[in-house]
Amino acid sequence: MQYPEPIAKLIESYMKLPGIGGKTATRLAFFTIDMDEDDVTDFAKSLISAKRDLHYCSICGNITEEDPCQICSDPSRDQTKVIVVEEPKDVMSLEKMKEYHGLYHVLHGVLSPIEGKGPEDINITSLLTRLQTHPDMQEVIIATNATPEGEATSMYLSRLIKPAGIKVTRLAHGLAVGSDIEYADEMTLFKAIEGRTEI
Amino acid sequence: MQYPEPIAKLIESYMKLPGIGGKTATRLAFFTIDMDEDDVTDFAKSLISAKRDLHYCSICGNITEEDPCQICSDPSRDQTKVIVVEEPKDVMSLEKMKEYHGLYHVLHGVLSPIEGKGPEDINITSLLTRLQTHPDMQEVIIATNATPEGEATSMYLSRLIKPAGIKVTRLAHGLAVGSDIEYADEMTLFKAIEGRTEI
Repeated sequence: MQYPEPIAKLIESYMKLPGIGGKTATRLAFFTIDMDEDDVTDFAKSLISAKRDLHYCSICGNITEEDPCQICSDPSRDQTKVIVVEEPKDVMSLEKMKEYHGLYHVLHGVLSPIEGKGPEDINITSLLTRLQTHPDMQEVIIATNATPEGEATSMYLSRLIKPAGIKVTRLAHGLAVGSDIEYADEMTLFKAIEGRTEI
Repeated sequence: MQYPEPIAKLIESYMKLPGIGGKTATRLAFFTIDMDEDDVTDFAKSLISAKRDLHYCSICGNITEEDPCQICSDPSRDQTKVIVVEEPKDVMSLEKMKEYHGLYHVLHGVLSPIEGKGPEDINITSLLTRLQTHPDMQEVIIATNATPEGEATSMYLSRLIKPAGIKVTRLAHGLAVGSDIEYADEMTLFKAIEGRTEI
């Protein structure tokens, strides 16, 4: 005996999500059946809407309903700085801080020879065009993740952009605020010592 | 700055699922945007369909597209035995074994004084009615989970049903096939010794 088709199909759909295997998908599917009807309808609608109504900004690559996005079309933002991030969600994390008022550029990935991802597979060309056509731009702040791929991408970008006379910086590495030295890994400690500041 | 509304709503929907918090919901929502359009449409459709087309069987409480369900309406199944389980997915697990050909009854929960769940909150009345109206019934096999609540429900059902002259049995507790004694907990070992069989 098989699961009735509607639930079998739902399990299959849930399994397409990252990190969700057969057991979890089954649990989620049975949970869905017991959910409020309105919640399920909302869920279905928001799936469709997220896929249909969201686009990538043609300037910065961030996710947006209108093109260009809110940030790119806001003249009050500092047009001399751009933060380069890997994914749209990184923009959100940085915006939550509320301390940065410049622009962003989303790469949609990092250079990764293992996954066969070269410079043409991520949003680099549009960044270079952007820098060329915006003579006001003074600083590119690279905020790729602190992973080997993120570091490599950072180095690559730096070598490409510096010759144009634009300052290239990288987010500081070190101890997270509120963290214990005891639990920090060696690389983080090394970076924290290397980047120590006078007090 | 907030997430664009379509993605904010999708994150909210994902967060209604059990075990999915803000970070995972955000990851799933961004993953959804990059998914194949057909897959997203299928996902939305299967959500709606699972909610709309699936019902609980009016006889056994199992999940089904037609009422009564496939098992209840199959005259070739052994009408003298009924396995009592907590949830519809337990029926699927037992059916996968392909060795049992009797009927099922789904309680949709267990007795749990802590959660305020009494006999009237689970599918017990319909089980008793079923036993009364089916004079062929010879054995009720209780397959609630091996948890304190499952055990309590099992004891409660046994006391209700036995006086009617119907045999009540419980699934055996013991070592899982392929498991190591070294890693078995004390209760399982105790049950395994208690239920030892002659060879």
